[in-house]
Amino acid sequence: MPLLRDEEEIERPVDQRTITRRYTEESVKKIREFKDGPFFLYLAQSLPHISLFRSAAFKDRSPAGIYGDVVEEIDWSVGEIVAALEETGVAGRTLIVFTSDNGPWLTFDTHGGSAGLLRDGKGSTWEGGQRVPTVMSWPGKLSPGVVREMGSTLDLLPTFVILAGGTPPQDRILDGHDLSPVLFGTGPSPRTEMYFYQGAQLYAVRKGPFKAHFTAYTSYVKQKPFPRDPPLLYHLGEDPSERFDIAAKHPDIVAELKSLAESHRKSIASPSFQSRTNSRK
Amino acid sequence: MPLLRDEEEIERPVDQRTITRRYTEESVKKIREFKDGPFFLYLAQSLPHISLFRSAAFKDRSPAGIYGDVVEEIDWSVGEIVAALEETGVAGRTLIVFTSDNGPWLTFDTHGGSAGLLRDGKGSTWEGGQRVPTVMSWPGKLSPGVVREMGSTLDLLPTFVILAGGTPPQDRILDGHDLSPVLFGTGPSPRTEMYFYQGAQLYAVRKGPFKAHFTAYTSYVKQKPFPRDPPLLYHLGEDPSERFDIAAKHPDIVAELKSLAESHRKSIASPSFQSRTNSRK
Repeated sequence: MPLLRDEEEIERPVDQRTITRRYTEESVKKIREFKDGPFFLYLAQSLPHISLFRSAAFKDRSPAGIYGDVVEEIDWSVGEIVAALEETGVAGRTLIVFTSDNGPWLTFDTHGGSAGLLRDGKGSTWEGGQRVPTVMSWPGKLSPGVVREMGSTLDLLPTFVILAGGTPPQDRILDGHDLSPVLFGTGPSPRTEMYFYQGAQLYAVRKGPFKAHFTAYTSYVKQKPFPRDPPLLYHLGEDPSERFDIAAKHPDIVAELKSLAESHRKSIASPSFQSRTNSRK
Repeated sequence: MPLLRDEEEIERPVDQRTITRRYTEESVKKIREFKDGPFFLYLAQSLPHISLFRSAAFKDRSPAGIYGDVVEEIDWSVGEIVAALEETGVAGRTLIVFTSDNGPWLTFDTHGGSAGLLRDGKGSTWEGGQRVPTVMSWPGKLSPGVVREMGSTLDLLPTFVILAGGTPPQDRILDGHDLSPVLFGTGPSPRTEMYFYQGAQLYAVRKGPFKAHFTAYTSYVKQKPFPRDPPLLYHLGEDPSERFDIAAKHPDIVAELKSLAESHRKSIASPSFQSRTNSRK
């Protein structure tokens, strides 16, 4: 695994034991460099992806083993970033977003993390694969609190553009919504639906508390997916672990979610070549 | 189900829809009555035991359904108790403990609650059956914070006696420890071990992060328990969900926990009659 700066390879193999620390130091340097203008910093920590590494300072720090050590080093990293924003005087005009791209990689046992009460993990369209916690902080602008509204990383682009005073591009359909009302507590989330993909295939649809699985499987590594008709239906408020299929009790909701899936499919054009990605019509 | 005051039956069947509210109002009355002397209030809410009930004011309040409604009414109840302690001026000399006797009753689906990432539920010796959250509050005496030390409801008796300036009874062996060091942050928990019973049978033993199951089963309602030799061994720090048996890797720890179980068994005398209880030698 090489380490690149822009397009130049600077280390091979990369020493991953110090990579969390070095990404952090580099980020702090960039914050100091760009503090006078507007800037966007995207710090995508490689860890806690498999294989797990942490610096000597974090070895055996956590009662949860090496996975816990790695998380503690990332926690330290967040602290360093926040301190740099405060020290450079830009904290008051900086929105911090901390989130993850997917749930735990369960096949790696205790090195893969846990989705808590959510079902399954990474690579799956069960909640454990796709629902992740998100922390947003903007001192003086956002009130502290817990939000249970729906949001997606798809929403970050339009939200950031609008918060920065810009206008989202009008020449294409965006899948994202502006989450500002949720951030500032002025209204409910404009996102009321969520579409769950496995590669280019739509497997499940959520609207409000209801989620229908049109293609189901135990776990993406253990079993082939198979279509379900009627779909499995869960109420994510009363049953966040997706344990109790209530499709038979709610034919009206099943019909609504089926029609939602159909309209959504019609709005998507699959590329002609073999790919896991889609382009929007 | 009758409702009793002392030994007198005052209502049959009891109207459980208002029972959380009525227990609370009664408790507030008792706090006002006893505010000038030392007092001990044990408020054992019947709910969220099955079947679930809540008052009209809490109907459809929670996105988590009736179980959520019931929990919100209990949350309201805690607020009323705290307010009564403050209003009567005794909050500064009153320790509040909020805890539960066991994990969720999983056979009741969405009416049974959830143990989060812990395995199984009520009636089982997996963590989901026995590990519960506890909140302690004593304004001005306890610093806010999260404690991950081990403790048990067995420890409440000696802890309360010592905090009240008394001496625990010396004429019998107590299974509890004084948790004061944990409460005041002056030291680690004196409890380093935990014994997990199914009725009168010792099924599992925990020491530090390690837990050995000498008798195992999938769930107490679904499968007959069977002895395991070697026992199943889990590291509750790295693997809080008890998913990965590591007995083969740690024969020394297995031996230590076996010997601990043996000494503990020798210290217990089972009653001669058929019973689910023990007496201590």
